[in-house]
Amino acid sequence: MTGAAALLSDLAGIAGAANVLTGPGLEAYERDWRKRWHGRAMAVVRPGSVAEVASLVSRCARACREGLPVSLVPQGGNTGLVGGGVPDETGRQIVVSLARMRSVRRLDVDNLTITVEAGCVLQAVQAAADDAGLHFPLSLASEGSCTLGGNLASNAGGTQVLRYGNARELCLGLEVVTAAGEIWQRLDGLRKDNTGYDLRDLFVGSEGTLGLITAATLRLFPRPRARFTVWAACAGLPEAVALLRRLRAEFDAELVGFEAMNAASLGLVARHFPDVARPLPDARGTASAPWSLLIELASARDPAALHAHAEAVLSDVLATGGVQDVLAASSVAQARALWRVREAIPLAQAAEGLNIKHDVAVPVSALPGFVEMADARLDAMLPGVRHITFGHLGDGNLHYNLQAPEGVDAARYLADHEPGANAVVYDVAGGLGGTFSAEHGIGRLRRGELAQRRTGVELGMMRAVKRALDPLGLFNPGVMLPGGDGPGPAPP
Amino acid sequence: MTGAAALLSDLAGIAGAANVLTGPGLEAYERDWRKRWHGRAMAVVRPGSVAEVASLVSRCARACREGLPVSLVPQGGNTGLVGGGVPDETGRQIVVSLARMRSVRRLDVDNLTITVEAGCVLQAVQAAADDAGLHFPLSLASEGSCTLGGNLASNAGGTQVLRYGNARELCLGLEVVTAAGEIWQRLDGLRKDNTGYDLRDLFVGSEGTLGLITAATLRLFPRPRARFTVWAACAGLPEAVALLRRLRAEFDAELVGFEAMNAASLGLVARHFPDVARPLPDARGTASAPWSLLIELASARDPAALHAHAEAVLSDVLATGGVQDVLAASSVAQARALWRVREAIPLAQAAEGLNIKHDVAVPVSALPGFVEMADARLDAMLPGVRHITFGHLGDGNLHYNLQAPEGVDAARYLADHEPGANAVVYDVAGGLGGTFSAEHGIGRLRRGELAQRRTGVELGMMRAVKRALDPLGLFNPGVMLPGGDGPGPAPP
Repeated sequence: MTGAAALLSDLAGIAGAANVLTGPGLEAYERDWRKRWHGRAMAVVRPGSVAEVASLVSRCARACREGLPVSLVPQGGNTGLVGGGVPDETGRQIVVSLARMRSVRRLDVDNLTITVEAGCVLQAVQAAADDAGLHFPLSLASEGSCTLGGNLASNAGGTQVLRYGNARELCLGLEVVTAAGEIWQRLDGLRKDNTGYDLRDLFVGSEGTLGLITAATLRLFPRPRARFTVWAACAGLPEAVALLRRLRAEFDAELVGFEAMNAASLGLVARHFPDVARPLPDARGTASAPWSLLIELASARDPAALHAHAEAVLSDVLATGGVQDVLAASSVAQARALWRVREAIPLAQAAEGLNIKHDVAVPVSALPGFVEMADARLDAMLPGVRHITFGHLGDGNLHYNLQAPEGVDAARYLADHEPGANAVVYDVAGGLGGTFSAEHGIGRLRRGELAQRRTGVELGMMRAVKRALDPLGLFNPGVMLPGGDGPGPAPP
Repeated sequence: MTGAAALLSDLAGIAGAANVLTGPGLEAYERDWRKRWHGRAMAVVRPGSVAEVASLVSRCARACREGLPVSLVPQGGNTGLVGGGVPDETGRQIVVSLARMRSVRRLDVDNLTITVEAGCVLQAVQAAADDAGLHFPLSLASEGSCTLGGNLASNAGGTQVLRYGNARELCLGLEVVTAAGEIWQRLDGLRKDNTGYDLRDLFVGSEGTLGLITAATLRLFPRPRARFTVWAACAGLPEAVALLRRLRAEFDAELVGFEAMNAASLGLVARHFPDVARPLPDARGTASAPWSLLIELASARDPAALHAHAEAVLSDVLATGGVQDVLAASSVAQARALWRVREAIPLAQAAEGLNIKHDVAVPVSALPGFVEMADARLDAMLPGVRHITFGHLGDGNLHYNLQAPEGVDAARYLADHEPGANAVVYDVAGGLGGTFSAEHGIGRLRRGELAQRRTGVELGMMRAVKRALDPLGLFNPGVMLPGGDGPGPAPP
């Protein structure tokens, strides 16, 4: 038996033969959902417990030490946007699918925590919290298929970060299988624990390159009693930032979402999803304003009190010219219809054709300057380019996307202009203290930017941490860190 | 010139001769404020800029590589409780006092951030935020002298963690001098930035053992418009936990503090600070209830609306027997008087005599069981021991302290019983998923517990991280990690 055959046989002994998949037909694991990366796996293993994960990691580490250059790619719902969860083309990587580990281990109402396995789908966590009369606020477009393990490995963001933070801030503890195949477990749900280095936050956001997250304890919140969803039209981003400031002072933590969309992005929705684009019967052409805002308040207060307060503040903002128009949802159905407009933008972009995507963040105070400068430099470089700009203004995070001019071949346009456009966008963001990847991560897509746009001091510390926790390079080589972190003994 | 003399001469060249202190008279730097540890420093250096810090670290690293076993002890306000900021007795440690680096570099109102140097005193940061009409919520007893660098190095907690988190959650970015004497700076105040490993949270809480924090960007919040402070008496901890749950559902993020004190702790305040102990004219002997609670709400709402809501909820809780009595502060002065009772407990303990201190946390749901079990086991082991139990119930964090029986020599009692009492308390907490150090950290005091009560897997990862980022053992050896992390080449 060759080394690989012996390894696969042992893995079948660990996880059960039915859970070690090889040969053709593994497409669903080897390709990301946007079909941008397509690798070839040596096998897909679907362990059913943390003990099985530990055994399989331990066995693969041994194979690696014995000269078989195998490595592991953890995979959750496979909904990532940067290729961090699919194998490369070498056929030497084993996909570890956590899909079978999806139980809710514990929900503690008084401690406001839930402990779930990594393969638990985000929507199932939300539902479990809801069943207990509580609220798990992480919310993403892919919540019906993404898993908590992936959410934590990629430090997912979403539409309520303004109030509740990223996935990192929602995580109180982890269970992780280390590169030595050992289990590290801290799932007690403590709010305070100053006993050594913060290993938890090292694993969160590490994209499967330092350890394999198998379970997590997450914060829950009281379920809001009242919500208020409002659409507002304004003249520009400075007005939007001023409104954000006003609403924070008026509502503090009750302000849970503050999204912005430019007219061009709503124009695409109107073109491809006309039914969605006009969500409320009395919408008075707000989509033609330079910027539209989608604002959500959530509160423990009585709904009538929240609504009265919100309406008074917005009337005042309208009267003093802070916004051009406001349109409050008067039912849950109307609120959902407003959110559907926002959610339709990426779909409308896809329907319009290939486009250049950016996921930047800058300090909120620098957002207006960022858009002004980036727009101007791109307009000069690419006359007629369409700016499809939208995102989580409250977090300083914009999906600053570019669509080819009307009538221009999009594929050709991308091939010609994507690198140049990226450089402009990341230069402008970087010059304002911003980042080239706010919530999507690095994966395979942004390794070049990481190498180029972070200092040697920072990259050196990251490489040192990687070598310290994964000396064999067993976990997800080729993802995140630039340069020689493939399987095999680490460089000195 | 000897190696040490040459080193000190070079340090004088870097920071100025007036800022390199040697010889006698360094007591203030060599001893912690509780006078529990008293070391001897080779020198105290007071750098004035991050560039000076980088140069001095670099120079000391060279000395270390050349065989002079020097190491560095970063020191802020020297208010720590576990001996993490004072030198050992070897005379080979250099205290790096950040006291001269205390400027506020930037305050960004729209981004809700402030960037301060490490030596900035916590109260000065609070004041700078307040001057801008904003709020920096970290609040500790030592806020008049502790510094932000120390707060971050120890991941300080305090009385508003329930709403705003620990120091970790308030920090958006750091400037750090690495063990190689290089500067790593990420002070842009981004809410979202998924570009590599979370180095920030590795330095936060590392007690100066991985790098030297020289500046930080911190989150600010809108200044609350209304506060409501109330004292409540209840029969036991199960009632207190039920009240916490009710208040969270009613007030969500408006609940900023939830402190608990047992009758014995208030008895000590009454004995030693009788004026403080009866804060309100109409206090009806609430201090004799088994447990007293100090609850604080803070809100962006109109004060009248908050007060009416809070009074309605508390009336209902009182009517249904959830608490025995409530007493709301009707002015800022009264609110302060209520907080003074809580703050007087540690002072009253000190006045009463030496005592055995514990800073434990368990899941909130396990708090009643913890106190019941720990009390019972200690009463059996140490008849007559006095339980002075108080703390941040909302975070599951209790200062579970023990005072010798009345009339017993406290010093002798401690010498005889501290190790045994510690073992009981940490065993009971650990059995409930709790921790032996919730907010005070490890320092020199709790290294034994860390070695004993964390798994080999966890300690192994911590040691690997330490070796990766501080291979010479230059930063604060003897603090936090157990075993051979002194200066000199790292073990393989």
